[in-house]
Amino acid sequence: MTTLAEYLEACRLEIDAALESALPRPPACPAVVADAMRYSVTAGGKRLRPVLCLASAEAVGGTRADAMPAACALELIHTYSLIHDDLPAMDNDTMRRGRPTLHVVAGEGMAILAGDGLLTEAFALLAREAPAADPVLARRTLRVIGVVATAAGAIGMVGGQALDLACVTADPEGRLAPPLDADGLRVMHAKKTGALIRASAVAGAIMGGGTEQHIDAIEIAATDLGLAFQIIDDVLDVEGSSADLGKTAGKDAAAGKPTYPALYGVARSRQMAAEGLERARAALDTASLADSRLLQIGRWIVERGN
Amino acid sequence: MTTLAEYLEACRLEIDAALESALPRPPACPAVVADAMRYSVTAGGKRLRPVLCLASAEAVGGTRADAMPAACALELIHTYSLIHDDLPAMDNDTMRRGRPTLHVVAGEGMAILAGDGLLTEAFALLAREAPAADPVLARRTLRVIGVVATAAGAIGMVGGQALDLACVTADPEGRLAPPLDADGLRVMHAKKTGALIRASAVAGAIMGGGTEQHIDAIEIAATDLGLAFQIIDDVLDVEGSSADLGKTAGKDAAAGKPTYPALYGVARSRQMAAEGLERARAALDTASLADSRLLQIGRWIVERGN
Repeated sequence: MTTLAEYLEACRLEIDAALESALPRPPACPAVVADAMRYSVTAGGKRLRPVLCLASAEAVGGTRADAMPAACALELIHTYSLIHDDLPAMDNDTMRRGRPTLHVVAGEGMAILAGDGLLTEAFALLAREAPAADPVLARRTLRVIGVVATAAGAIGMVGGQALDLACVTADPEGRLAPPLDADGLRVMHAKKTGALIRASAVAGAIMGGGTEQHIDAIEIAATDLGLAFQIIDDVLDVEGSSADLGKTAGKDAAAGKPTYPALYGVARSRQMAAEGLERARAALDTASLADSRLLQIGRWIVERGN
Repeated sequence: MTTLAEYLEACRLEIDAALESALPRPPACPAVVADAMRYSVTAGGKRLRPVLCLASAEAVGGTRADAMPAACALELIHTYSLIHDDLPAMDNDTMRRGRPTLHVVAGEGMAILAGDGLLTEAFALLAREAPAADPVLARRTLRVIGVVATAAGAIGMVGGQALDLACVTADPEGRLAPPLDADGLRVMHAKKTGALIRASAVAGAIMGGGTEQHIDAIEIAATDLGLAFQIIDDVLDVEGSSADLGKTAGKDAAAGKPTYPALYGVARSRQMAAEGLERARAALDTASLADSRLLQIGRWIVERGN
């Protein structure tokens, strides 16, 4: 059995290769937007969402190849969301994954378009990789498209970003929205980051041919892992340096955004993340999935340093 | 047989009702982004893409209901593209469909998010409306998702907008991109507006159960209709008033963008649109589809006053 580090590295190599071949290229795609999309996709990152997707497929008895199109689609969607979130009209971030953000190097208009292109390509990729002749694969793919689009859309990730934006900007009447309380923070994060993380694990379970019991257990576990991920992200934003994070540190607190450490303190926040991990373990255990890479990845999420 | 005007009005009423029920709403969707999405979708417009989709489905023997999810998805995508194109970082337009553009009323950040939400919702809607138990419908829906996403993405509409943007803004080295020549203009429009118009007709033919011969003929015809639509759009931009158009008139020429009238003059441009219509008729005729609403809609495209 390989170590988790070896497993993550093997997954990342496969994901990066699949992403590379999935990206549109000239001459069909104008170079100016192909280059912009590639700049952000190839900037690296943890590839957490696609790794979760592949690990879920394997946990339920499928292969990484079964879930690779979904894994790539999820990373394309995650990357588009970072590009748009970093725009001056949103978080106005100039560094991401250790490089200048896309709008800094390609302009705001092209950054918006590259994000739009990545989001759209995610669905083109999923549809393209499902051979029409295979009804089982067609059914799974359609279900995954529904799961992923719902998680990424206005009731999920886009809605979470809208809540985040609304809590730091004036509304049209010029009043400032009230700061989020603990419940509001939980809802915002459940949408903004939780929904896509959950969808990543669920999509893997579906593409890997998991039973409904598998899929349900993984959905519950991934909900807790998504929350734990966000809590640790907030903690690292407080504790970390920009060099470690590859993005601007302390940004959320400086922007007056609510964070877990601000509401609960660092020690209690870390404890909440550990409790989430334990709930995830229990959920996986109900479907005999606790002895899988999924739980190891959960532990990595909670214990990571960046 | 109803007149074309009656047919278009009946389609629009059905489309508007279906769009209304497709839009995400609170409490699942935060009101701030639900309102923004609704503002732009309910602003009206010709509903050309969904009408083409429904008419194609009927032309090949299907029903409007067969194609309604695809029709709504196409209008959501069209609406998102208008929102993003109107942003200050792109065309910087303040009026659209006779109302202030979304970023004017809701702010740039929320306009970007509403566009993202509409694009994503298009695919959620398509996946949601395909019952897993029906393998024929699943296969058609997956094919339509592929057709629509490819047309809307970086090798299609997003790529066309990128070419448009690149020809009016400085590249990262500070040089201005050269103005488009006739070929460049044709490619830009084929991507920017043509791809989604073609996909609308093709999606309708697929959802309506058309044969491959039907689908091919409709694809060829819709390619010519899309070009004719764009030529007439350019002509109206030169000739029209802002009140007629519901958007800022003369904008393209003022921005130094190439247009058909600028390259060929108004009379020759109108003749080119009429030639496109004739080619569309011939293509439809090869599949015995010339006697359908599709061709009437084509004539309306070429003869319309706004």
